[in-house]
Amino acid sequence: MASVGILERLDAGEVVIGDGGFVFALEKRGYVKAGPWTPEAAAEHPEAAAQGVPEGGANVMQTFTFYASDDKLENRGNKGAQINEAACDLAREVANEGDAMVAGGVCQTPSYLSCKSETEVKGILKKQLDVFIKKNVDFLIAEYFEHVEEAVWAVEVLKETGKPVAASMCIGPDGDMHGVSPGECAVRLVKAGAQIVGVNCHFDPMTCVKTVKMMKEGVEKAGLKAHYMVQPLAYHTPDCNCQGFIDLPEFPFGLEPRILSRWDMHKYAREAFNAGIRFIGGCCGFEPYHIRAVAEELGPERGFLPAASEKHGNWGAGLEMHTKPWVRARARRDYWENLKPASGRPQCPSMSAPDGWGVTKGHTDLMQQKEATSQDQLKQLLKVLKQSKASMQ
Amino acid sequence: MASVGILERLDAGEVVIGDGGFVFALEKRGYVKAGPWTPEAAAEHPEAAAQGVPEGGANVMQTFTFYASDDKLENRGNKGAQINEAACDLAREVANEGDAMVAGGVCQTPSYLSCKSETEVKGILKKQLDVFIKKNVDFLIAEYFEHVEEAVWAVEVLKETGKPVAASMCIGPDGDMHGVSPGECAVRLVKAGAQIVGVNCHFDPMTCVKTVKMMKEGVEKAGLKAHYMVQPLAYHTPDCNCQGFIDLPEFPFGLEPRILSRWDMHKYAREAFNAGIRFIGGCCGFEPYHIRAVAEELGPERGFLPAASEKHGNWGAGLEMHTKPWVRARARRDYWENLKPASGRPQCPSMSAPDGWGVTKGHTDLMQQKEATSQDQLKQLLKVLKQSKASMQ
Amino acid sequence: MASVGILERLDAGEVVIGDGGFVFALEKRGYVKAGPWTPEAAAEHPEAAAQGVPEGGANVMQTFTFYASDDKLENRGNKGAQINEAACDLAREVANEGDAMVAGGVCQTPSYLSCKSETEVKGILKKQLDVFIKKNVDFLIAEYFEHVEEAVWAVEVLKETGKPVAASMCIGPDGDMHGVSPGECAVRLVKAGAQIVGVNCHFDPMTCVKTVKMMKEGVEKAGLKAHYMVQPLAYHTPDCNCQGFIDLPEFPFGLEPRILSRWDMHKYAREAFNAGIRFIGGCCGFEPYHIRAVAEELGPERGFLPAASEKHGNWGAGLEMHTKPWVRARARRDYWENLKPASGRPQCPSMSAPDGWGVTKGHTDLMQQKEATSQDQLKQLLKVLKQSKASMQ
Amino acid sequence: MASVGILERLDAGEVVIGDGGFVFALEKRGYVKAGPWTPEAAAEHPEAAAQGVPEGGANVMQTFTFYASDDKLENRGNKGAQINEAACDLAREVANEGDAMVAGGVCQTPSYLSCKSETEVKGILKKQLDVFIKKNVDFLIAEYFEHVEEAVWAVEVLKETGKPVAASMCIGPDGDMHGVSPGECAVRLVKAGAQIVGVNCHFDPMTCVKTVKMMKEGVEKAGLKAHYMVQPLAYHTPDCNCQGFIDLPEFPFGLEPRILSRWDMHKYAREAFNAGIRFIGGCCGFEPYHIRAVAEELGPERGFLPAASEKHGNWGAGLEMHTKPWVRARARRDYWENLKPASGRPQCPSMSAPDGWGVTKGHTDLMQQKEATSQDQLKQLLKVLKQSKASMQ
Repeated sequence: MASVGILERLDAGEVVIGDGGFVFALEKRGYVKAGPWTPEAAAEHPEAAAQGVPEGGANVMQTFTFYASDDKLENRGNKGAQINEAACDLAREVANEGDAMVAGGVCQTPSYLSCKSETEVKGILKKQLDVFIKKNVDFLIAEYFEHVEEAVWAVEVLKETGKPVAASMCIGPDGDMHGVSPGECAVRLVKAGAQIVGVNCHFDPMTCVKTVKMMKEGVEKAGLKAHYMVQPLAYHTPDCNCQGFIDLPEFPFGLEPRILSRWDMHKYAREAFNAGIRFIGGCCGFEPYHIRAVAEELGPERGFLPAASEKHGNWGAGLEMHTKPWVRARARRDYWENLKPASGRPQCPSMSAPDGWGVTKGHTDLMQQKEATSQDQLKQLLKVLKQSKASMQ
Repeated sequence: MASVGILERLDAGEVVIGDGGFVFALEKRGYVKAGPWTPEAAAEHPEAAAQGVPEGGANVMQTFTFYASDDKLENRGNKGAQINEAACDLAREVANEGDAMVAGGVCQTPSYLSCKSETEVKGILKKQLDVFIKKNVDFLIAEYFEHVEEAVWAVEVLKETGKPVAASMCIGPDGDMHGVSPGECAVRLVKAGAQIVGVNCHFDPMTCVKTVKMMKEGVEKAGLKAHYMVQPLAYHTPDCNCQGFIDLPEFPFGLEPRILSRWDMHKYAREAFNAGIRFIGGCCGFEPYHIRAVAEELGPERGFLPAASEKHGNWGAGLEMHTKPWVRARARRDYWENLKPASGRPQCPSMSAPDGWGVTKGHTDLMQQKEATSQDQLKQLLKVLKQSKASMQ
Repeated sequence: MASVGILERLDAGEVVIGDGGFVFALEKRGYVKAGPWTPEAAAEHPEAAAQGVPEGGANVMQTFTFYASDDKLENRGNKGAQINEAACDLAREVANEGDAMVAGGVCQTPSYLSCKSETEVKGILKKQLDVFIKKNVDFLIAEYFEHVEEAVWAVEVLKETGKPVAASMCIGPDGDMHGVSPGECAVRLVKAGAQIVGVNCHFDPMTCVKTVKMMKEGVEKAGLKAHYMVQPLAYHTPDCNCQGFIDLPEFPFGLEPRILSRWDMHKYAREAFNAGIRFIGGCCGFEPYHIRAVAEELGPERGFLPAASEKHGNWGAGLEMHTKPWVRARARRDYWENLKPASGRPQCPSMSAPDGWGVTKGHTDLMQQKEATSQDQLKQLLKVLKQSKASMQ
Repeated sequence: MASVGILERLDAGEVVIGDGGFVFALEKRGYVKAGPWTPEAAAEHPEAAAQGVPEGGANVMQTFTFYASDDKLENRGNKGAQINEAACDLAREVANEGDAMVAGGVCQTPSYLSCKSETEVKGILKKQLDVFIKKNVDFLIAEYFEHVEEAVWAVEVLKETGKPVAASMCIGPDGDMHGVSPGECAVRLVKAGAQIVGVNCHFDPMTCVKTVKMMKEGVEKAGLKAHYMVQPLAYHTPDCNCQGFIDLPEFPFGLEPRILSRWDMHKYAREAFNAGIRFIGGCCGFEPYHIRAVAEELGPERGFLPAASEKHGNWGAGLEMHTKPWVRARARRDYWENLKPASGRPQCPSMSAPDGWGVTKGHTDLMQQKEATSQDQLKQLLKVLKQSKASMQ
């Protein structure tokens, strides 16, 4: 186990840097399939899955167990225990390279979306948990929950282990899918026993920081105490509705123009720190250089730079050695801080209208099935979509 | 050495897929410094440098020797021979994982830009070559040349080895920095002995294909014969002038919004193939999933898909298993082919005005020095830049 | 006077079309000075001021008396009574061409912004009113108020005449400058005696309709009754904060790219009608063809088309006679309804960050002076602005 | 007639300001029908057609005779002679208000597009000319020609009158529809007898100035002499192909986002003057304030400002009297000169892909018919369009 625990670090006011973006990163490298997004690569290609993760300088290795609950994996034809075990071994091995902590992660289940009972959902989560305990992870994260009810259930299950528990929802300022506000969500999670609360995925960094601020205000107003975490997308999403980037027409294969630059990351890290958040990381879209930028921005507070900064001049300083003098003139902070980068896509818009039918848990459209969508189902879908777009005009 | 050589493959009409984008990819992961861009990582962190390269399914491993001529490396305080040798070993090791060919690469030198003589420049290039011969690479590439004169010198040096020689310039439709047209450049390179000619870097895929087409027309008009190659950026650059993306204000740390999607890559691969180009690859900005997209588009012609496609549904087919029905409806070719992805950056423009003073080899502004730019020099630079922008209004 | 009054028309469920955009239109033609925006043209060039107004087919001629209160005019060196009288004569003359109604308009005063008393502000408004009564206008509009307190004072003054009174604020969904919600503003105005309430200027059509909807909900929730009016900008303003388009960096001389097309106007007119608004018009930026488009969209409900439609094919039908066949193919509703028009400005953004210091009535920065800003004051301003922008980063 | 003629003015080095944008301006006010674009308003509503024209301060009143040749008017059911006469009277009346010159204008004919003979086309043009001579216009303009052959025929007809002749084509840098370069076009027109040559319509100001520069180079290279004119669109058209803005998907009812600001006009006027052009005006999209901006930019050279500038502070100076201090801070040249105005349309692109089938005179698709397109023809058109778009992917 890591020499100092997550709560000790946060209690001491330390900045902890996370990195939860492995699913998207591995999809781009060919080890994860977009759509199911299940992490069987942990068992199939452990050496590949391990690559790249520690390069940015993160303190937390999350087990590679996103969507690795039995019900999700079975839907997609994989075996849960084996994958979860492999993922824990892998995370520990990587973490040990840099004295990082290993966090075992669970996330929302198809069972909940299909209206299964509290007992059933908790049973599913518990199975994953058994592996985490056997492998002795440093702490636990319940992350990527759209409904506070399921998130509370998850916290209740995780709490039984005695390990520190973090709870992170994938919501924005409008709250969970049933309209529970971020402040109220946070209060319920803290009351259920989470020591760290926050949000991850679904929205861009500034939106996520804003949401965690609302959580903090709610917790403080209720006279409670907690630590705060944020692990946003590395994509700009000003045009999202409450369900986040999944409803954007560009999800998941046309998000490139939205990728944050390293300088966007500096702004994010500073904003998160100023908001009182101390567990600061990233989710889908983060690459090692994004995490490095977060670590560089917070270098003064942390007292050190990540190893990867050895080859990275502060605010573009390496450009002082560029061949062309007008590029050398870009070796300065105010240049990059003020640059408004062009998209190079003059026939594309800057914002999209999100898809999405405004439905959530309980609606028949969201009942999960084991089979892939059939051609008939797809045809029906396109018909519904066309009608919904026509009615918007 | 590889079982079948590059010329045998091209003569047989085979599509050869390249991948030259390692410098940018390694910068993002912390192993290369932006500005000098020299490849000392090959010697310093060989295991890291080897990661990621074969995942897309490329047939050619270029030695990790960009800007690895002695004069460039000395400017930046590194030792040439050691780095070039390590780079060859590394490329061979990676290539052997997939029966790929190893290509030894040389590129333009600071000596040329500083007006050194033909003998001096050729001497510099020859030193690198000695390593490539000792390590027995499969073939040689002279790439990233802005001036056809220097490119011809390089081809003349490389020809002496008896290995197959490819020559690739970093020019667009306006030709080399002294205004020599792409067609004329190609003719001179073929006459100097290059069996494969084309362009790499500096421009987006469609612009590069257009340039190679002009080369092909020139070669054919001159009654000559050659094979053609193209290794473009993975960035959209509709706003570039003749010096390419380096003059864009976003270079090199604000290029994210310009990154091509996998669907852009399909269009590129098809366009290149239709233009009669058979050595089709990528340069700065390419990630494994970009190369995979090229390989997938040309799957029917090649008769197989890359290994990485095992986890990649054709045209987004994996989305058929997504939780939300309106995302399942995106599992079809026409959706992704027609999508105009939004930038998520409504306060940013879609095109930039390039910097650049319209000077090239021979101008004092481009004389290279060993030292990094001093603060005084930087101040002077900013003054010149400000004046040049004011005069443009 | 007009043969049928405004309240009779609205009570009968008729759609009344307004046109309040003369200030901006006359600025472009050289009869109004941007900055003071005062309407001395009514007295100086009556024949010019009369041009263009009736062409769109509006039912209401507003007196050309924007910012024509004595305190505003004196600040700018003009005489109030003379201008107000000339404006009334002019409006009546134009109205008579098409049996339209004449509305006498008052708007917010510099006196209020400079914290003068209720008695003083009401005295200022009363002076204008005396002219309107002498000239026997058909009804009265208190429009362009940012603070509900001053708007209520205006309604109280106007009510004393016995003429029908409309009250229109220049607010958006965030309410007045002191944060009073649109619903609450509307309730106070109706209680003060306004028979028609709504908003004008400052925001784009869709935002204005949304705001009037909030007003209507407030009025109905309070058990009151009113008619509703909306006279928005003809500019897209998705990036405004609560103070509207004046704070946009483009105000007032760079708004061209934001001008609504006639098709945008169709959507607006339909949306306003569906929201239960029956006094539907326009403000700054409206040209005759915008009003015509509103009248054409509501042609089925009104039972007739405006005279100007004689030369205007429905939904582009006139293009059936174009020389080029691919332009003829645009002669159809779905083409124009779905077109996303390009800006032709690839180096410009699609949204701006508003200026503005978040201050309003009562703040020393907003005390009004008679003199134009001095060079010293301007220098001081630029310093403050620069600091405020730096602190935003 | 005007006291000083066009050639005397130009020979003296005077700047002459034109204004040819009446067709679009009157369409927006309801007096011209988009599609046929014929000028029957001159006869039907002379008082309306006269409005607005002199306000910007132009020196040339063009007769309101665009597309007023008999063959065009007959196609559209109007009588030629009556309209042309009314147009001349109207232009003279307006011109007399400000000692401006009257220019009689002819433009390209449907007869030419339908492959009629030189004799027939010249006959058609001569009929219009008879009216111009009877009404004694000051000079003649042959404008809006896409084919240099027809433009030369027109010049030959006009020359017979002994009046000064200007010849203006609607081409860009790629030359006429059969690929004749701007330089060669200009040479042929000068040889045919035109004393003034240039371009109008179809492209934005900077593109038009560039084209006239090419004409000037051609004329000078041929050892000839001429004066130069330019009357561009008031729309940004960076995305046009050789046929100009008619092929843009936004033509003619979605061009609003492309409208030039007054500051764009300053840049245009300066650029045109610097290029040696002295007859500087505007075409479709120009409003009086655009012409005023041209006149203001060239005020120093001309020695006076237009009357309309009385109410127009230099470079936004009127804003010094604005209520809000941050708007007062915009009362300066560098603010407006550097502003990149936002479109307020984040879901729209910044550039479009032009329509157009690459056909011109002689192609059956361009044979003109008297009848409006039938529903059957329209259906067929949509089919062809759909195929052409599909093939572009």
